[in-house]
Amino acid sequence: MENKQILLAKRPMGEITPDCWEYRTSAIPEVGPGQVLVEVHYLSIDPAMRGWMNAGKSYIRPVEIGEVFRALGVGKVIASQHDKLPIGSFVSGSMGVQEYALLEGKEVVPVDPSFMALPVYLGTLGMSGMTAYFGMLDTGEPKAGETVVVSGAAGAVGSVAGQIAKLKGCRVVGIAGGADKCRYVVDTLGFDACIDYKEGALRKRLAEACPAGVDVFFDNVGGEILDTVLTLINKKARIVICGAISQYNTSRPEGPKNYLSLLVNRAKMEGIVVFDNIPKYGEAAQEMAQWILQGKLNAQFHVETGGVEAFHETLQKLFAGANTGKMVLQVREG
Amino acid sequence: MENKQILLAKRPMGEITPDCWEYRTSAIPEVGPGQVLVEVHYLSIDPAMRGWMNAGKSYIRPVEIGEVFRALGVGKVIASQHDKLPIGSFVSGSMGVQEYALLEGKEVVPVDPSFMALPVYLGTLGMSGMTAYFGMLDTGEPKAGETVVVSGAAGAVGSVAGQIAKLKGCRVVGIAGGADKCRYVVDTLGFDACIDYKEGALRKRLAEACPAGVDVFFDNVGGEILDTVLTLINKKARIVICGAISQYNTSRPEGPKNYLSLLVNRAKMEGIVVFDNIPKYGEAAQEMAQWILQGKLNAQFHVETGGVEAFHETLQKLFAGANTGKMVLQVREG
Repeated sequence: MENKQILLAKRPMGEITPDCWEYRTSAIPEVGPGQVLVEVHYLSIDPAMRGWMNAGKSYIRPVEIGEVFRALGVGKVIASQHDKLPIGSFVSGSMGVQEYALLEGKEVVPVDPSFMALPVYLGTLGMSGMTAYFGMLDTGEPKAGETVVVSGAAGAVGSVAGQIAKLKGCRVVGIAGGADKCRYVVDTLGFDACIDYKEGALRKRLAEACPAGVDVFFDNVGGEILDTVLTLINKKARIVICGAISQYNTSRPEGPKNYLSLLVNRAKMEGIVVFDNIPKYGEAAQEMAQWILQGKLNAQFHVETGGVEAFHETLQKLFAGANTGKMVLQVREG
Repeated sequence: MENKQILLAKRPMGEITPDCWEYRTSAIPEVGPGQVLVEVHYLSIDPAMRGWMNAGKSYIRPVEIGEVFRALGVGKVIASQHDKLPIGSFVSGSMGVQEYALLEGKEVVPVDPSFMALPVYLGTLGMSGMTAYFGMLDTGEPKAGETVVVSGAAGAVGSVAGQIAKLKGCRVVGIAGGADKCRYVVDTLGFDACIDYKEGALRKRLAEACPAGVDVFFDNVGGEILDTVLTLINKKARIVICGAISQYNTSRPEGPKNYLSLLVNRAKMEGIVVFDNIPKYGEAAQEMAQWILQGKLNAQFHVETGGVEAFHETLQKLFAGANTGKMVLQVREG
C-alpha cells in the first residue's frame, strides 16, 4: 500500500503553474502512541491555498518547499493508537494533499457521516462556514432591514455569509460570475438579487439592486468589485475583508482607489481570520447544523473527482470560478 | 466700507489653479433680527477645502459656483441684533473667504481672545483639534505602551493627534516632510521620533522607529505612506483615515495596494468626520484647554498675512506643506 502525495516544489510568481507541484509516492507511516492513520476521503480546496504558497509572514506559516502541501480534509481512521478515535470512525483535520495522513489524535475532530455528508464538515460546518458565520455576525453586524452585499456569492464562504444575513432579516444582494451562478444564488440560496459582474455596468446594476445603499459588504473578491461597492456604501457601513480572490494570482495587486469613501461615510473596513474564533467553533457549528436541519441554510458543496493527481487542475477550476458552494476534491469513495 | 470676497469660479481638475477663484467687492449687508455682522480676523486654511471645491455628495455639501467660498473663521462683532453677542465681542463660525460676514447669532460660538490667541480657536480648540481628539481617542483607541504613528505630524491635526497619544502613554512616531518639520515634531511637540518621508527608505526607517510594530496609525496623507505603514501594522491594529492630502489634487487617486494586511492582521481601517461629534465638542475643548494651560499640549499655529487676496497663495502653501501647526490667514490685525 502506497501513499500518493503532492509537495510544494516551487513558489509561484503570479499564476500557479503545474511545475509548482511535485508528485511523490511514499510508504505509509507507522502509527505511534496517541496517533491515528487516516484514509483521506475529501480535501478542502480553498482560495487561501494561494497565500500558503507564498514565502513570508501571514496569518499562518507558509508551506515550505518540499513539504506535503497543506489541505484540510476528512477521512476514515484505519489505524489508531488513540482511545477515543477507533478504527472506522471519521475525523476532520489538516490532512495535506495525500491519500493517507498520520495525525496526532488531539489535532483531529470526530465527525459523523450519518449526520451530515462528509463534505459539509469541510464547508458549511468547516472553515468556510465558520469564516462566514463570525465574519458576518461579529464584524459585519447586520441589522434587520439593512442591505448586505456579498461578493463571491456562489462560493463556499459567500453562499453561507449571505444566507446568514437573510436569516437576520436583511436585504441580501450577491455578486457572482455568470448567469447560472446568479440564478443559483437567488433561486437556491434565497438571496434577494444577484449581479453577474461579467455582464458589465456593475455599478449601475448594483445601485438598482440596492436602492437604500449598502450597509454591510462581505468581500471575498477585491479589485474592481470592492472599488465599486465603496461608491455605494451608507454612513457607518461595515466592509468585511474576508479575501480577495481577484488579487491572489497577480504580482501587482490593486488597492481600493475609492477607499476615501470610508472617510466620507465614517465607515470601516476590517479584516478577519477565522482561526481567531476557534474557541467558539463548537457553538457556531451547532447553530449552523440546526439551520441546515431546519432547511434554513443550504449547505451546498461541489465535488471534483480524480484523486490527489487532480489537485492542480481542481485548484485552477476554483480560481476560474467553476464551483457553486464549497469545492472539495474526492480522494477516495467512501 | 466695502467687503472683499472670494467666490468659487470653477471646479478644478486635479491641481487648484488661480482661475478657480473670482475676486469681488460688494456692499456690506444690513444686520437683521437675530443676526450679527462680523469683521473677520482670521480664516482657517484646511486641506478639506479641496474636497469642498468638488461637485457631488460628500460629508458636507459642495460649495456652488458663484458662492463665497466656505471657510471657518474668527472675528469681532461690529453690528448686532442678538442679545448675547454684543458689539466688540468675538465669535467663531463659518465666515467664508471675505472681510465681513453676516451670520445668524445661533450659528456662531463666542470665543475669548484674553483666554487663548484667536487662531487657537480655529486650530487646537477648533475643527482640527476636535478631529484629532475624537479620531485618536474614539477610533484609534490608543493604549499605554502601544506604538502610534501619525502622518502629517507637523500639521494642524497630526500635531494634536500625536500629542494626545503621548498623553495616553504611547510611543509616538511622526511622519513629516523635511528635516525642520521633523525637528519641530520631536523637539517642540515631544514625539518620540519623526521620519522625514522626503529622505527615502521610508519603510526601513519607520520599522527602526517602531521596533514593536504599529498599533495605531492616524493617517492624514494616504498614498505611499499609508501603503508603507500597512506593511508594519500589528494584529488588531487600528488605522484612522482622517484625510489623504497626497491624493486630493490628483485626478487619478491611488488605493492602498497593501490593504490585505488588514486581513492578515485582523486590523481595521475606519474613516472619521469631525461633525459627528458636535454634541461633545464643548467637553473636549475644555479638556484640551486644560492641557494647553498646563503646558501638556502645544497649540502651535502658523499665520499667513495678506488678507483675502492672499487666499489662493496661502492654500497652495498648505498643499506644499509650508506650515507647522494650524495654518490661518490673517484678514485683519486686531
